[in-house]
Amino acid sequence: MTHIVILGCGFGGLAAARELASSDVQITLIDRSNHHLFQPLLYQVATAGLSAPAIAAPIRHILARQRNLTTLLGSVSDIDPVTRLVKLSDGSGIGYDYLIVATGSTHSYFGHDEWAELAPGLKTLSDAFEIRRRVLMSFEHAERETDPDKRAAWLTFSVIGAGATGVEMAGTLAEIARHTLRGEFRRIDSRDARVVLMEGSDRVLPPYPPDLSEKARLQLERLGVEVRTSCRVTGIDREGVTFTTAEGEQRLPSKTVIWSAGVAASPLGSALGAPLDRAGRVEVEPDLSIPGHPEIFVIGDLAAVTSDGKPVPGVSPAAKQMGRTAAHNIMRHIKGGTPEVFKYKDYGSLATIGRRSAVAQVGKFKFSGFPAWLFWLFVHIYFLIGFRSRLMVLTDWAWAYFSFQRSARIVVVPEEEPAKQKAET
Amino acid sequence: MTHIVILGCGFGGLAAARELASSDVQITLIDRSNHHLFQPLLYQVATAGLSAPAIAAPIRHILARQRNLTTLLGSVSDIDPVTRLVKLSDGSGIGYDYLIVATGSTHSYFGHDEWAELAPGLKTLSDAFEIRRRVLMSFEHAERETDPDKRAAWLTFSVIGAGATGVEMAGTLAEIARHTLRGEFRRIDSRDARVVLMEGSDRVLPPYPPDLSEKARLQLERLGVEVRTSCRVTGIDREGVTFTTAEGEQRLPSKTVIWSAGVAASPLGSALGAPLDRAGRVEVEPDLSIPGHPEIFVIGDLAAVTSDGKPVPGVSPAAKQMGRTAAHNIMRHIKGGTPEVFKYKDYGSLATIGRRSAVAQVGKFKFSGFPAWLFWLFVHIYFLIGFRSRLMVLTDWAWAYFSFQRSARIVVVPEEEPAKQKAET
Repeated sequence: MTHIVILGCGFGGLAAARELASSDVQITLIDRSNHHLFQPLLYQVATAGLSAPAIAAPIRHILARQRNLTTLLGSVSDIDPVTRLVKLSDGSGIGYDYLIVATGSTHSYFGHDEWAELAPGLKTLSDAFEIRRRVLMSFEHAERETDPDKRAAWLTFSVIGAGATGVEMAGTLAEIARHTLRGEFRRIDSRDARVVLMEGSDRVLPPYPPDLSEKARLQLERLGVEVRTSCRVTGIDREGVTFTTAEGEQRLPSKTVIWSAGVAASPLGSALGAPLDRAGRVEVEPDLSIPGHPEIFVIGDLAAVTSDGKPVPGVSPAAKQMGRTAAHNIMRHIKGGTPEVFKYKDYGSLATIGRRSAVAQVGKFKFSGFPAWLFWLFVHIYFLIGFRSRLMVLTDWAWAYFSFQRSARIVVVPEEEPAKQKAET
Repeated sequence: MTHIVILGCGFGGLAAARELASSDVQITLIDRSNHHLFQPLLYQVATAGLSAPAIAAPIRHILARQRNLTTLLGSVSDIDPVTRLVKLSDGSGIGYDYLIVATGSTHSYFGHDEWAELAPGLKTLSDAFEIRRRVLMSFEHAERETDPDKRAAWLTFSVIGAGATGVEMAGTLAEIARHTLRGEFRRIDSRDARVVLMEGSDRVLPPYPPDLSEKARLQLERLGVEVRTSCRVTGIDREGVTFTTAEGEQRLPSKTVIWSAGVAASPLGSALGAPLDRAGRVEVEPDLSIPGHPEIFVIGDLAAVTSDGKPVPGVSPAAKQMGRTAAHNIMRHIKGGTPEVFKYKDYGSLATIGRRSAVAQVGKFKFSGFPAWLFWLFVHIYFLIGFRSRLMVLTDWAWAYFSFQRSARIVVVPEEEPAKQKAET
């Protein structure tokens, strides 16, 4: 029977797998983690608003009833398009008739890889836990710090990159400082915390229409976020951030820096021997296969594809649509038909900024503030996988909304000494 | 103003802090972690039934309204009873007029410290996450393993020590194999998993009345747990467990081993220069102070104390009661009164075994099975801190009860390569 291997169980891989549920094929789905992650809400885990199970579902459980599919937890080290073999890091190999590569993207530090540990990005649950730890620990350090300058540095949070994730992080951090932690410290006032959002281009949410960007900036500033546009980061170290603006080079003492600027495609793309764009994404054919290999498809953030002459953005709806197209084209190829050309259906853009504020564009409709926030809320609840997690998220949010509290403020390893910690607490 | 320092925010430390809420003293509460942990339900986190925030509450948040208390997140490296100074690992020192040491206990491997990484114990949230990871990953390895013997070893779970925690772990693991994971694998049947509970003494739950121990054994076996009593573990390695019984030395191939046998007092006890018992617990005076130091009190698992001639067990009610007594005795000492002698009020013992089964002794009443389980459920919900976590736990349990699903089956770092994982999923 035809064997289809899918690499990665993000939005794209999962959509492809489900689209093939009733087809007479054998599917092997390989992912490095045991869960499908609802990335649009990952920033909520990073900011202690949600706990991991609310936005992550075990892949095996999601697909338990799909009998033609086998889930494999493993990491792919290489792909050989000639012998049609996927190699796992444990040395084993898995042959395929058709391959769908959906391993997504990771952070790009624009050649400054040394910034990675100084300014973590937000892609996986472990990223989120690390950012949560750093944010909450910064307030703890500030409480213990007696030197006013050092204390200020602990209480300054820099978010680099004002795309959707950056805007959501900055807004939520301001909320935490102003409301969540208020009154819990004795030597500092958490409301003294500064949240600085830096963006290289001349406005926040660059892909959005300028008027929505302006609305977003106003809502951020109302929350207490300092927005710095046309601001190029030139250096990051343990003590803070160096950047240049129209006023020239400046320095911001900041102990906590979060990276939401660059995105680079998964390294697996290069294993395919297909042409890559500057971001390392695979330049696929209009049918999402790669040149010379009608049996290999690349989808999601890893694929560089245009629709109606416009580049398709790296968002979850696009990944899902590509997953379905790839699945269709495999079945067409099996049946000897001609492949369909991928057409991206743009449902609009949606970003939340914080408590009761968001911006949205749906078709030609643009709106912001509370209605946009309600819309954002329902869309995200709706697309969450599993009734249970919808329930969890709704109750968590209702609670957070009325109590200003955040439920997941647990840091497992405050100091980098897990062993000793186990011994003493 | 009188300065009272409390080390550790477990049940004992928290109870002491709260008891002093309305007293005219300054309190500094130091803990290595930012949360108070409801340890009786920690096994639920280890078995993916609950997520961390359900059983852990931020210390700052719990005590935010107690104005005479300052929370400090830090690790204590030493105590100097002479100069009355507590030294933190960051080099700073904190003076005190009165000191309450409540740093609890850790695992003891009876001199086999090399067993620690082979058979993790269950004391902290990081322990729980590690055990969860190992359990869930074992099924993943079994799914990938082709050699039947190796596969069997991956599907064999050993729990060493049949105290309350061991019994709860074993019962829940059997439940996971039989119900939760059922039908989610293609090459293995999760129900083939073996759960072996080993106990050195001649019955499970040794501190309980023999007839309840017998009931517990029967309920465990009904759940599919293999109970081995009078069984002494002589060796643990990556492949399994070696143990001796009446039949002599035997070998159990088992890739997952969980340690719930020995308990050792926190190393801080020795810093006080007071007499220690064999388990390293501080032998305190009847008023819980240490010999020659009426200003230093030791409470909870770290204290070796007798009440009515009987040793006080290391359970949370005892810790809470000691916390209150220590607080009272400090205030009496300040006012120049005579200290009160600690009397342990035993409310009984309660252990759950799994779905709808438990054993309980309250005063002279003994019961087991469903009623005991209901009782266990309500007691634990009742003592959980915060209305919200009660709500979370109730809904999680209701869900688990009816769906047989467990909500927290998320493994953040399946392989020991977080970096690569970030890159590829």
